[in-house]
Parts: sequence; structure tokens; C-alpha cells
Amino acid sequence: MTSLMKTFALALMFSTQLAAGSAFAQTGSKPEPLVIAEQGSFAVGGSVTSTPGAYNNNAPSDEGQSLHGDHAYVFYQVPEKPKPLPIVMLHGAYQSARSWETTPDGREGFQNIFLRKGYSTYLVDQPRRGRAGNSPVAMTIEPTPYDQLFFDQFRIGKWPDYFDNVQFDRDPEALDQFLRSVTPNTGPFDANVIASSMSALFDRIGDAILFTHSQAGGPGWLTAIENPKVKAIVAFEPGSGFLFPEGELPEAMPSAAGTLKPDAVSVADFEKLTRIPIVIYYGDNFPVEPTRERGQDNWRVRLAMAKLWVAAVNKHGGDARLVHLPEIGIKGNTHFLMSDLNNAEIADQVVKFLAEKKLD
Amino acid sequence: MTSLMKTFALALMFSTQLAAGSAFAQTGSKPEPLVIAEQGSFAVGGSVTSTPGAYNNNAPSDEGQSLHGDHAYVFYQVPEKPKPLPIVMLHGAYQSARSWETTPDGREGFQNIFLRKGYSTYLVDQPRRGRAGNSPVAMTIEPTPYDQLFFDQFRIGKWPDYFDNVQFDRDPEALDQFLRSVTPNTGPFDANVIASSMSALFDRIGDAILFTHSQAGGPGWLTAIENPKVKAIVAFEPGSGFLFPEGELPEAMPSAAGTLKPDAVSVADFEKLTRIPIVIYYGDNFPVEPTRERGQDNWRVRLAMAKLWVAAVNKHGGDARLVHLPEIGIKGNTHFLMSDLNNAEIADQVVKFLAEKKLD
Repeated sequence: MTSLMKTFALALMFSTQLAAGSAFAQTGSKPEPLVIAEQGSFAVGGSVTSTPGAYNNNAPSDEGQSLHGDHAYVFYQVPEKPKPLPIVMLHGAYQSARSWETTPDGREGFQNIFLRKGYSTYLVDQPRRGRAGNSPVAMTIEPTPYDQLFFDQFRIGKWPDYFDNVQFDRDPEALDQFLRSVTPNTGPFDANVIASSMSALFDRIGDAILFTHSQAGGPGWLTAIENPKVKAIVAFEPGSGFLFPEGELPEAMPSAAGTLKPDAVSVADFEKLTRIPIVIYYGDNFPVEPTRERGQDNWRVRLAMAKLWVAAVNKHGGDARLVHLPEIGIKGNTHFLMSDLNNAEIADQVVKFLAEKKLD
Repeated sequence: MTSLMKTFALALMFSTQLAAGSAFAQTGSKPEPLVIAEQGSFAVGGSVTSTPGAYNNNAPSDEGQSLHGDHAYVFYQVPEKPKPLPIVMLHGAYQSARSWETTPDGREGFQNIFLRKGYSTYLVDQPRRGRAGNSPVAMTIEPTPYDQLFFDQFRIGKWPDYFDNVQFDRDPEALDQFLRSVTPNTGPFDANVIASSMSALFDRIGDAILFTHSQAGGPGWLTAIENPKVKAIVAFEPGSGFLFPEGELPEAMPSAAGTLKPDAVSVADFEKLTRIPIVIYYGDNFPVEPTRERGQDNWRVRLAMAKLWVAAVNKHGGDARLVHLPEIGIKGNTHFLMSDLNNAEIADQVVKFLAEKKLD
């Protein structure tokens, strides 16, 4: 927190005597139990950095010691009679695997929803985030008050007003839970470090489907380039890392939230993305024309860039599709499609896609 | 990493084509499926810090913005027909809820073991750790090579040698997984901040049993002082925060790993700890006499202090017990009792304790 900030803290004791899962009580019916054949967690990928010298057990210093870091952390669950391809879920910026669990308003997230549909789920904390915090690269975490910026940027509304049609529960407790899903980087964001550990994950579990959210878009494409065991990508609102073949880069796109630049990869690497089905979903409340409203304008250029990207993949013989949800009548989605009030409907869209591509 | 360190990185791609859960394959039999009536996650407790001023949606700065932080993150699972009291598990230093999940050698940890015994489990990432990383207090994470120190300090052996009887798998992959469960603080460790969010958790879920590991010992006692819904504490190798009544503090205890000092609380607060059953477990390979071996001597004084602490609780009418496992014939345990090779036997000890106290 900057020294210019004069801050005050509100102790927020949730005295609400809610039993966990009270959201079910509201609807009056509990979902069926989940039957889990196997669950657990592991680290995958990463590096070991070592300091020269001899370790002294009785007076340890850096000398002769090593550090394990830059791995991903993965929590997995396998339902009974699982579908052949598991689903790997990779969160976006400021988030962890938490993104895919219980929604801010207490309903089931994509973790449970896809388990119920028979998929094994692998929820990742990317290297340098959450439970995969150790890294050989130093980091200073400067607490920054971003709640209002997030409200705008994640298209819940224009602070302090919710969008009229927004698929986000207006109970203040839901916003509180949403803002507490934010967790900082514990090392600098590095798409290649993430893709490397993700590729190690696919080596470990074999063929699987990759879900990415937001900032994970970029590392997701890199993972599929690196590892042919990625059999499809479902990208929810990719926000960065749009990779184009060298010589075919579109113009950078200025917006009220900064300029979005495409990234270059070799044609050979780009064409690896043409071998798998890809679908990209974007939600609602995008401006059509440039606007000074930072939170929305950020997404205007990302949607535009993603359209060019899909066209480039398909021009090279690929199978990519962009679904702008309002155009198929699904309205009010925020940046967090997987935890919005209509997340079951979003999941059904994904299921339809996977069925069409014979991936189920 | 200090600038004095000359480091080199080894890319560790685990090419092992292990299916997750291969440990089961080794034993030739898979455990029965887990039937989960409900699972999910939430944030609990915490603070909101705000910056004065007016928020400008189109040019956001700190002004008029807030930050949610210092909550705990909790992942919970409720089995069918759960026992009346859930178990809350709080990890130690450098760790997250990961401590209670799959063991470093790929077997089931206390999360699954206690679910199978019919307990609801609530696994916590404490404030300023793991998925609960946001905090209003700044932090610099300086990567420090601690692998060899941890090997000694967590009593796996005396680096590079394993203790002869150690309950830790000697497959290098197990040590690799163990060292990757380490994750840094994202804000300064603060036992009161942790106890505050833990108390909010007990307010939310009601009466429950608290398991603590290592550094969580201190915040655990504070949580029970703060909240009468803590109905018992099972402390695995508490390492800090030994609270004594004012005027009854024992002498500080010097060791090769520094001096362990008791902390003072009011008699009234101390006596809140006499109302619940408490059991403390310590493992093996503690020195009896002072030694220059830092990793072991660290625990000599903690065991000695814990014995004084148990005596003080009982002198005030409490019901505390210390079990030094080798004394009841359970040998070779490291600092991580809950993931050691004999963790099922440790769990059985706990079950016996809970049954004796009619908490099951």
C-alpha cells in the first residue's frame, strides 16, 4: 500500500450462522452426492536452483542448499466411470484454482458441474500463484486497492452500479466472496514458465481437454503448441497472449485500458494450433465503438483481436470458433463466465461443443 | 535469492508417464470411492481497507478504492451421514492446506483418511498464504534455498542421510514432491490475524474439532480462546506460540536453533483452554541432551516446552495430554506426522482419542 494512502480497516466478522452450502437450502433441493473414485493433489514441472558450496547442518546458510520452485500445484478428482478425456482448468490473473470452485453466491462451480457430467477434473494453481508459490525469482507484493477497478474490468458493472442484466448476484456477500478470490503473484508472471509446467501436467495425465480463463489464454496456446496431448482448448474470455504467425501480425489495438499487442510465433508453431478444436467464449456488455470507459474498452479490443486470431487459425486450416454469447441470446455475462448466475447454461454450451467434436 | 548466490536452474520435466494415483497400483488395490454429499470453497474472516477519495472509473488510481484481504480460504467436503463434529485442519509454516492432501509418496493424506472415517473436513489456507494471499500489509518474497535445512528441521534425517527408521519414502520423487509443498508467506505471519479468521470459520460452521500442525499451534490455541465452538484440539508437533498464564511463565529455552520463549496470556484466557480436550503428538528422533545439530535441537526444546505447557493446563483443571510417539512404540516419525508412511496409524491414534472424549 503506498505511503500516500491513508487506510482504515473494517473488521468483517461474518456472524451469519450459515451452514456451508446454504445456497442449496435456498433452492430447496440438494444436488445428488458426488461419487469420487479418486482425489488428491501433486506438484508438477518446475525447477531446482542450487547454490554452490558445502551445506553445514549445524550452521546452515545459502551455501550448498537448493530451492524447488516454478512448479504448478494440481488438485484432481476422478468420478466413477470417467469420460476418456479429463478436463484441466487454468485460472486467470489475480486468481487461483478457486475460480472454478463454488461461485461467489455459493452455488456449484465448474469443478462440481463437470464432475457431475462425468469428467475428471484437474484444477491448477499456476507457478508463482496460490499453493504453487515458491519461485527462484524474487517478488515484492505491494497491496493495491483494486476492488472498484475489478468491478469495472470484470464487467460486473460500472462501479458502483451493476449492469442491468448482469449475471452476478447483488447480495453484498457475493461481491465480498468474489473480491476475496483475488490472490497475488508470488513471482513475476511468465507465460513460458506456466506453459512448461502445464505441459509437464499433460505428460503426466495424458490426453486431456484444457479450459483457460482470461490471462491463462496465452499460456494455454503455448501449452498446446508444446504438447500434443492437449486435445482441445475451451478459452473463456482470453485476455492476453494472442499468438499470430510471423509476418501475419495484425495492428496493435489502442484502448482506454492500454494498447493490446499481438505476439509472434513461427508458422510451424502456429500451425500446431490448427490440429485441435478450439472454442472461445466472451460474455456481455462489450462496447461496439471505442469508449473512455476503461473497464469495458479493455474488452472491446480483446474481442476484436480474438476474432482476427480465430480467422488466422482457420485460414491456416484450423478449427477455431468464437462465440460472443449475446449473439446466441445468452445475456449479461461478466468476465467470469464459469461462476456467473447462468454458469450451468455456459457449461451446457461447452458440453455441446465437446459432443460435436466427439471429445466426450 | 541474494545477489551473492550464483544459481543455476535444472529444468525438471517429469517425463514419468504416471497416471495420477499410481501409488494405488503399487498396493494392487484401490480404495473404495468417496461419496461426497457436498463440497466447495469459500473465504472467511478478513478485513477491508479503503483509500479516501473519489473513484474515477475512466482513470482509476488508489483513490476511492478498497482492498479485501487477510481472510482464510477454506475447501470443505461433507461425506454422506457425516459425524456431528467436522474437522478443521490448519497447516504450519511454509505450507498450505496441501499438507493434509496426498502424501509426498502419493498415498492418501488426512483429508481422505478422515473423510473415509465419516468426518466432514475443512482444509484451510491461512491468511497471507496460498489461495488466501491478499493482505493489506506489503511483503517482499526473497527466494531462499532451504531444501537441506528443511530436510534436517523436519527430521527426515541429517542431510544428505535419512534417519535409519524414518517414516519417509526414499524415492527421490517423494522428496521432490515434499519440497514442492513449500509455499511462501504473502504477508507477515501474524498469529492474531490467523486466529481471527479461524474464529470466523468456527462461527460459520459451528462446533468442530481443530487439527493444527507445527506453527499453527499458536494460532490454534488463540482460536480456542477466542471461540468456544472449538470443541477439541489435536496438535501435531506444535512449534511456536506456547501460551502460559501471566506470572507462570517458564524460563526461555536456548537451543542450537535459537531460543524458544513462552508467551503470556491472562489467567482468564488461559483457563479457556482448560475447557476442552487437547492432545499433542510428537514424532521420533528427538535428542535427549542438548546437541549442536540444529534440526534436531530445535525440537528438543519444543518437546520440553510442550510438556511444561500440558502440565500447566492440567494444573488449572484442564484435560491436556502429550503423546511422544516413540514412547508408545510408534517409531521413525518426521515432523509431518499426517503424511508419514504410517499416517494411517497416526490417524488411528487420533480416532481413539476422539472416541475416548466422545467427540465422534
